[in-house]
Amino acid sequence: MKNTIEVCFTPHSFPLFPHEERLVVVIDVLRATSCMCAAFHHGVGKILPVASIAEARDFQSKGFLVAAERQAQKVEGFDLGNSPFEYMKPELKGKVIVFTTTNGTQAIRAAKEAYKIAVGSFLNLSALCEWLTTQHKNIILLCAGWKDFFNLEDTLCAGAIACKLDETGLFEINYDSTLAAKYLYEKASSDLYAFMENSSHFKRLSKLNLYEDMRYCLTPDTAPVVPVMEGHYLVPNGHK
Amino acid sequence: MKNTIEVCFTPHSFPLFPHEERLVVVIDVLRATSCMCAAFHHGVGKILPVASIAEARDFQSKGFLVAAERQAQKVEGFDLGNSPFEYMKPELKGKVIVFTTTNGTQAIRAAKEAYKIAVGSFLNLSALCEWLTTQHKNIILLCAGWKDFFNLEDTLCAGAIACKLDETGLFEINYDSTLAAKYLYEKASSDLYAFMENSSHFKRLSKLNLYEDMRYCLTPDTAPVVPVMEGHYLVPNGHK
Repeated sequence: MKNTIEVCFTPHSFPLFPHEERLVVVIDVLRATSCMCAAFHHGVGKILPVASIAEARDFQSKGFLVAAERQAQKVEGFDLGNSPFEYMKPELKGKVIVFTTTNGTQAIRAAKEAYKIAVGSFLNLSALCEWLTTQHKNIILLCAGWKDFFNLEDTLCAGAIACKLDETGLFEINYDSTLAAKYLYEKASSDLYAFMENSSHFKRLSKLNLYEDMRYCLTPDTAPVVPVMEGHYLVPNGHK
Repeated sequence: MKNTIEVCFTPHSFPLFPHEERLVVVIDVLRATSCMCAAFHHGVGKILPVASIAEARDFQSKGFLVAAERQAQKVEGFDLGNSPFEYMKPELKGKVIVFTTTNGTQAIRAAKEAYKIAVGSFLNLSALCEWLTTQHKNIILLCAGWKDFFNLEDTLCAGAIACKLDETGLFEINYDSTLAAKYLYEKASSDLYAFMENSSHFKRLSKLNLYEDMRYCLTPDTAPVVPVMEGHYLVPNGHK
């Protein structure tokens, strides 16, 4: 029997989905899951996603390296923000990073009862899809959205994953949410960046002059890793 | 200042939207809000939407005419089901109908604190949009979905409304959910029926042989009325 793919547009809706037996891919294109892929591709050892700033501070006081973003900006007093370029530095190789963001790490937390959690973005699109075909599980693509509201970029990435998995013939694409994400991606795929220019997070990040971040985060397959949760940590070896 | 249009994909997400000051259009294309539009266009006097079968039975025992649908089928023992053709009979002219359905009447109930509630479908697309331009309110297009999950047909109708209102130049279309609905409608509009053939509710209704219902419900502007809530009742005179 073919495995199914369902898209969940916001963490708020996630508890409605039966998920204990499903593999959940958390997607936060701008920019948490893109950062995670970039980080592992550049040699970061482990990432510990935490939901709150308070938890992040607690880890910082214990000597951890901590990344914290809220409202698209680095939270004062922390080591790293939410730009993928920050995670490419050689000095981060092999390090453990504690990570909290507005939406992405909340989505990971929301999925904690799932059979398995992986991280998706455009940066690891092909590697992720290849790995997913080896898992033989029904899949939920969980979009992190923006503060529990629908967003376009995560939906487009979910659509890109659904399109790629559909091509393998191993999956059934019949949930309406998956069809919608797939149709949107098909409409957008010839020029993702141009398609995104009307979106609300594009406008939010434009005000902060983060065009390079956005261009990078919308480029497929520059970080072919598959971060997966093992216990409390994200590790880079889901692709093995 | 231009008014905004936001799409809410499921009643489950609706409490997250600030809605006390907004005009909410409830959309359940297959088939509750299509039935309501067809009913008023054919002379039905008032509709009393109720959420539960128990309430519906209570009204029936008091002598009311009652329509009740669950799982796409008429509930045994009630007067009417959820096919728009049932609501065109001359004997229903001027009558009050108590109405409960799987999704549509639940969505109306969910929106009860809104500034105003209107009912939308493809059948009243142009009349509804014309009326909305006279209201000078921020709008939420509330898709009834299927048991709190996203569905394609209500999203397409929301997209059709957004496209039509966008043409007037009176509204700001900048929420991601509204952009997504609009893009999907633009992709689907040349042949809505064909586009819908992969959707889950199409398959559900196909099994019940309800092709004529679906074809009718996807045809724009055959019932140019604007049902609005006044107290506990839907009345047909929003267009006045």
